[in-house]
Amino acid sequence: MRQTLDFLLNDWLRVEQLNTRARFAEHSAETYGAVLDLAEKLAREKFAPYNRLADQQEPHFDGERVHLPEPTHAAMRAYAESGLLAASQDEAWGGMQLPCVIEMAAQSFISKASVAMSGYAMLTQGNANLLMAHGSARQREVFARREFEGRWFGTMCLSEPQAGSSLSDIATRAEPDGADFEQDPLGPRYRLRGHKMWISGGEHEMSENIVHLVLAKIPGPDGQLVPGTRGISLFIVPKQIVDASGELSGERNDVVLAGLNHKLGYRGTSNCLLNFGEGRFTPGGRAGAVGYLVGRPGEGLKCMFHMMNEARIGVGLGAVMLGYAGYEASLEYARQRPQGRAMTAAGKDAASPQRPIIEHADVKRMLLAQKSYVEGGLALALFCARLVDELHTAEPEAAAEAGRLLEVLTPIAKSWPSEWCLEANSLAIQVLGGYGYTRDFPVEQYWRDNRLNMIHEGTHGIQGLDLLGRKVVMEGGRALLTLAGRINKSIEAALQRPGLSELAHGLAAALARLGRATKDAWASGQPEEALANATPYLQAFGHVVLAWIWLELALAVEGVDSDFAQGKRAAARYFHAYELPKIEAWLAVVSRREALCREMQDAWY
Amino acid sequence: MRQTLDFLLNDWLRVEQLNTRARFAEHSAETYGAVLDLAEKLAREKFAPYNRLADQQEPHFDGERVHLPEPTHAAMRAYAESGLLAASQDEAWGGMQLPCVIEMAAQSFISKASVAMSGYAMLTQGNANLLMAHGSARQREVFARREFEGRWFGTMCLSEPQAGSSLSDIATRAEPDGADFEQDPLGPRYRLRGHKMWISGGEHEMSENIVHLVLAKIPGPDGQLVPGTRGISLFIVPKQIVDASGELSGERNDVVLAGLNHKLGYRGTSNCLLNFGEGRFTPGGRAGAVGYLVGRPGEGLKCMFHMMNEARIGVGLGAVMLGYAGYEASLEYARQRPQGRAMTAAGKDAASPQRPIIEHADVKRMLLAQKSYVEGGLALALFCARLVDELHTAEPEAAAEAGRLLEVLTPIAKSWPSEWCLEANSLAIQVLGGYGYTRDFPVEQYWRDNRLNMIHEGTHGIQGLDLLGRKVVMEGGRALLTLAGRINKSIEAALQRPGLSELAHGLAAALARLGRATKDAWASGQPEEALANATPYLQAFGHVVLAWIWLELALAVEGVDSDFAQGKRAAARYFHAYELPKIEAWLAVVSRREALCREMQDAWY
Repeated sequence: MRQTLDFLLNDWLRVEQLNTRARFAEHSAETYGAVLDLAEKLAREKFAPYNRLADQQEPHFDGERVHLPEPTHAAMRAYAESGLLAASQDEAWGGMQLPCVIEMAAQSFISKASVAMSGYAMLTQGNANLLMAHGSARQREVFARREFEGRWFGTMCLSEPQAGSSLSDIATRAEPDGADFEQDPLGPRYRLRGHKMWISGGEHEMSENIVHLVLAKIPGPDGQLVPGTRGISLFIVPKQIVDASGELSGERNDVVLAGLNHKLGYRGTSNCLLNFGEGRFTPGGRAGAVGYLVGRPGEGLKCMFHMMNEARIGVGLGAVMLGYAGYEASLEYARQRPQGRAMTAAGKDAASPQRPIIEHADVKRMLLAQKSYVEGGLALALFCARLVDELHTAEPEAAAEAGRLLEVLTPIAKSWPSEWCLEANSLAIQVLGGYGYTRDFPVEQYWRDNRLNMIHEGTHGIQGLDLLGRKVVMEGGRALLTLAGRINKSIEAALQRPGLSELAHGLAAALARLGRATKDAWASGQPEEALANATPYLQAFGHVVLAWIWLELALAVEGVDSDFAQGKRAAARYFHAYELPKIEAWLAVVSRREALCREMQDAWY
Repeated sequence: MRQTLDFLLNDWLRVEQLNTRARFAEHSAETYGAVLDLAEKLAREKFAPYNRLADQQEPHFDGERVHLPEPTHAAMRAYAESGLLAASQDEAWGGMQLPCVIEMAAQSFISKASVAMSGYAMLTQGNANLLMAHGSARQREVFARREFEGRWFGTMCLSEPQAGSSLSDIATRAEPDGADFEQDPLGPRYRLRGHKMWISGGEHEMSENIVHLVLAKIPGPDGQLVPGTRGISLFIVPKQIVDASGELSGERNDVVLAGLNHKLGYRGTSNCLLNFGEGRFTPGGRAGAVGYLVGRPGEGLKCMFHMMNEARIGVGLGAVMLGYAGYEASLEYARQRPQGRAMTAAGKDAASPQRPIIEHADVKRMLLAQKSYVEGGLALALFCARLVDELHTAEPEAAAEAGRLLEVLTPIAKSWPSEWCLEANSLAIQVLGGYGYTRDFPVEQYWRDNRLNMIHEGTHGIQGLDLLGRKVVMEGGRALLTLAGRINKSIEAALQRPGLSELAHGLAAALARLGRATKDAWASGQPEEALANATPYLQAFGHVVLAWIWLELALAVEGVDSDFAQGKRAAARYFHAYELPKIEAWLAVVSRREALCREMQDAWY
């Protein structure tokens, strides 16, 4: 994988160009390489060997505490000590001032080694990054700093048992805590009461404190909660009460574990139902979880989306790396497992020795499919991270363009790997056959772990609505046009290379087809008609984006004669030959605004 | 499900027509209904309540015995007492002389309730059926009779650790047991030595004896094993040694559990590595597993295929019923879970109450997809069972036609549900969202259980080779022509009905496309070129068959105005609109004999 990563970063994304910018001026190919070395070593030594253990010894609650296996503690300690938690922060904050794209490349090793064990770190980083963007100076100093140091961990508390995809229905209440509630140095102080569901890292004993970022509603003057998402505000609710300087007061906040969820996979990350304000603890002498407002009242969702967009790309990367882990495991297996013989016109010679299964066309197909999914997915994740760097450090016009591309690509970066790198994991099981179905090999766990990714941080259906309902129509379709412009540039470049013109023509046709379907979907102007087939649209859009990514990678190895370059060309051809043609089936129903599903009646099932 | 089952059996497959045949003359709609009632009750009371328990308390080996949860014992006792084990056998054998199609319909309830717990019964039936077809009179009397009575259970022992898909490489040896080996009343007696892997039901304490049917090779005069499948013979190897009348001698045969496999799913069925002839026991005073030849030497695989074809349709049915179970669970959930609001041109009214998720178009889509997969899959399985009845009881010409159809449909009946009813299970998880990812709901288990079905009884890749490499070319393509003739009849009938002509035209085009791809694949006459894309061919073939099944079902409800009929029409339209168009992507690579995969080099990955 390292060779592919280096290729993507250096030959394709040209990360060295970032070093001309003030923020990254201290960096070089050497410092980037050192960070990747560090992450690779950390992943190999502290995460990978315990990934199965973290699955087998899932978190358990003894009524008082949540227990995780000791290697998870050790891995998180090592992660914190590595400095990677603050990798992209300012040096003044103890950070490395790394580009986001390098941070994500480093993260890819950790995610591949154990996506579940590393979940705590991802959440803590996302949480602290949000506070850096929206918190007050004191909130950053008290909470974010300790998170970057790995002393405190973070969570994001959005869903409730009755409100998952529909966040406008959250019922957690936040009421001003006393007459002086606005004078607290940590921020306007409220008392929260409610229940939060699916909280990853919601309880454990790995850190001195847990910083919950909680969405809740401040009642109006009539004591009622405002319907809709506009009523939602964001609060810091620390597990342990802290004073204004960030010292633990020794008092426990009124946020309590109600129960652990027992999952299909991803078991290394504890997942919790949390009760806020039920009176189990009484900070300051009374019930109610103490929380500090972040940003302004009613802007909670906007702030949270800062974290969610990052989290969505992170989910996509996690899905990719699970796929990558399965690809590597099945490739290794296929190289050493003898079974069957070559198929020839003369039949098979049963007396000859068996051949490694990697020599069979169908096994090659399954490996090539995986390669195209996972390397393509990794390229997409890094491309998005590179856009984040553009957004933050490029000239205004380029930054704005990067921002638009990010808007339209985020639903793809999240959903496409969740679906196709899961399929990669299924193919990895298939390559191993019966052995792949046992817990003696790692591939079944990857498949179980990966199934979460189409669900959390916005389901597949939600991503489709976001893409077709918001992203491709916003600003009169400007983001989509920006993406199409980029794709067309790649097509034009590829048309100059004889070996790539077929792929270029195929992609041009697919892009035109996607554009037509987008128009057709909205031709009647009725959202319920356009969006009834938002998921097939999402699937087709994702395949077009990946076909473009693969054309880009084929361009990047154009003229290179090596096994590595041949592999990239083969994967590009695979994606264009076997995958891209699938879009027609998805887009046909989009284009004719197929009404079958929305007209289906409950009684007919 | 019962309503759909009755519809399929009575309105579509017209099972009452079978009663005109001598074998089924005693039967009627009432006796069939009574059998289905019996199976439904058995499934509801003895299997369904313990399906999760059988997953949680997977078989474990204490070094001496394999322990299963008590409810599995109780369920198998009840199953044996119900008489269903011998349902299709002659009355003289204590059977019910039921048509195969009714037996399979009854089985569908049991499989839906717990595919893993019922595995022991399926294997025992298949084993006994094989002995009825190929065993001697004494072997039938001693072994098959006790299996039908549920006193002894059966297994099939094909794979070895080094030989799964490539059975020609099995290394288990069978050597004549003494000079008088041919005089044993139970059949020519051999001693077997070797290892058998992936043996479902290979060890447990539920029955007095276990009847292993074992593939092994008899060495030639030079002491060497004959390469290839022609050297393979079939043996009965009982766990407990029996005398000529079938009484247990009290002596233990030299077949021993080497270890249990710990699986991803399907945990209610023990799965074993068995050692034969290692000397742990010494029947008759010496090491070596005592086995009795079934049929003639060298014809073991032919005999075993009798059981395997049946097993393959059974695997398909199991996959369907797992899909069905998930469909029912997600449908129930979708009807009661409130989340979100209707999408209208005026936006959403956040103050209105939330709606059950079954009202959202994308959820309807996921339910409709499941419905089309699982009801279509059930129809296909029953259609195949109906063909078995034709094969056994129709006039010669009709029987021969049924036989050809079975040949070409068996790979589809096995592979298609394994892939698409697994996808149904994934959609069921998706409908439940986060809850579906927990072990508090049943859908995650169905998905894990179902993942086995693309692997056992011949992997997906093997089914593709069987279909494109053997079935569609045998007898100059006669089986394929027979199937195409049947499909064309349905198309002609549908063209007469205005409401179905669009589906009919679509199917006609798809069938023509499939025929062209079949010719294209073999145009160069080179198996390695034709078969490099056998799996995409298998996928496309399966979708065409299912589109035909759905057209048939739509024909069967033509003119009926009921919610039930509307549901069938909607599922038919769904399959034709959303699924059938996928075939073009699969067949494009078949038609041009895409060489990418077979030309891929190991070093390029």
